[in-house]
Amino acid sequence: MKNYHKIVIIGSGNVATVLGKALKKKGFTIVQVYGRKRETAKKLSHLLNCAFVTKLSDITLKADLYIIAVKDDAISGIASSLKLKSKTVVHTSGSIPMDVLKGVSECYGVLYPVHGFNKNEPLNAGIPFCIESANRDDRLKLERLVRKLKGKPFNMNSVQRAKLHLAAVFANNFTNHLWYIADTILSDARLPFKLLVSLAADNLNKLKSSHPAQHQTGPAIRKDTGVMKKHEQMLKKYPAEFGSVYKLLSKSIQAVNKDRNHK
Amino acid sequence: MKNYHKIVIIGSGNVATVLGKALKKKGFTIVQVYGRKRETAKKLSHLLNCAFVTKLSDITLKADLYIIAVKDDAISGIASSLKLKSKTVVHTSGSIPMDVLKGVSECYGVLYPVHGFNKNEPLNAGIPFCIESANRDDRLKLERLVRKLKGKPFNMNSVQRAKLHLAAVFANNFTNHLWYIADTILSDARLPFKLLVSLAADNLNKLKSSHPAQHQTGPAIRKDTGVMKKHEQMLKKYPAEFGSVYKLLSKSIQAVNKDRNHK
Repeated sequence: MKNYHKIVIIGSGNVATVLGKALKKKGFTIVQVYGRKRETAKKLSHLLNCAFVTKLSDITLKADLYIIAVKDDAISGIASSLKLKSKTVVHTSGSIPMDVLKGVSECYGVLYPVHGFNKNEPLNAGIPFCIESANRDDRLKLERLVRKLKGKPFNMNSVQRAKLHLAAVFANNFTNHLWYIADTILSDARLPFKLLVSLAADNLNKLKSSHPAQHQTGPAIRKDTGVMKKHEQMLKKYPAEFGSVYKLLSKSIQAVNKDRNHK
Repeated sequence: MKNYHKIVIIGSGNVATVLGKALKKKGFTIVQVYGRKRETAKKLSHLLNCAFVTKLSDITLKADLYIIAVKDDAISGIASSLKLKSKTVVHTSGSIPMDVLKGVSECYGVLYPVHGFNKNEPLNAGIPFCIESANRDDRLKLERLVRKLKGKPFNMNSVQRAKLHLAAVFANNFTNHLWYIADTILSDARLPFKLLVSLAADNLNKLKSSHPAQHQTGPAIRKDTGVMKKHEQMLKKYPAEFGSVYKLLSKSIQAVNKDRNHK
């Protein structure tokens, strides 16, 4: 079983750029980049020292691995007009099932990095990569590729991956929005955001060794209605959604901790 | 101006215990502990090698500093039956105005550590302490006390502190609940929670140097309605609040990013 060596990157955004640069650095040869827009495709091809194309029909058949790193809703369109025979093709999406690539090649799979990428940052070590593939040979090769990138391979099916992606929306996108609300309130009080960073860091440390159910604190779980009413009053000067978020999250905390409070 | 030396701790819970132990370790003398419940007061007095009382009227007048570390809603009751002449008295609450202590002594203030305390853990270094006081002398002494504890003193008034406390509910209590939801979805998919910890750690790192508005990601801000509908469908098997939280936070993200999306 040979490892992948020659790789085509389909896409030229954040994930395509970060993965492409990391793969090149680890000795893989990027033979071609595909991008819908000429400018961004060209730019990435310069970074990776390879050719670029802007038509799917111009993608070379001379690579071992094709990584589709485009927006979720563009994957099925690309899949429907791409034919790669028995070459391995993977997409990098958390929410799209593997089977969308069934018609592209006999060898298809998923390589989903659980991370928020920025074009200008390198690939950190220790990032989990979710792997799925139609055959065992590709699964083992993808695992090796992930380890070469200093990532952590996790095997899971499309249903599990979709749940992980949903969970990540809560743990990442939604928490960031709560930090945004906190930041808005702090700015309004002319207080620095760093006042809350050590609190957040401490909580995250706890999550490394225990589960969030074990350390829910705050007025909602204490049923401290005096403080909660005061907070709701204070929130009236901000966008209406802030108050709604406060009420709903407090309600949700109390709902899932019902048994605990009855004790 | 002499520093505080002899301290009375009023309260015997998490904050009282952690602060009491840290102060003792740094050379302060804890002369007495007050607790409503005999058992917990006794236990803490053993730890701090001092006397304990269970009646407010038995609190000694021979200390320099009185730290009221009890539940928010118990502070005003204690304040109304405590007379300490010109001895300095502070409470440790984020949400209660300083003035609640006006009748207790001429010298009153607030010492609010922005942290979630657990009895069995030591006081970490670097914790922000919010300081407020009726006079300059106490403010300087409280700042010195905080620095002795390796904390970071921040001066602010009661209105600012209440806003900080509200912001902390969003950035800490509510984010923990979102992690709880994420954990529930992951367990259901038989996936380990650690899959999301590196994502959360990376986000937190970003918050140390930039603001949350700069890195909101996810389907809501991208207006990826396909993924959002799928997620809402997936959430139907969990407690109803999870779906409501998903919809409301997505709506809130879109509301505060309206201008950005119009660009």
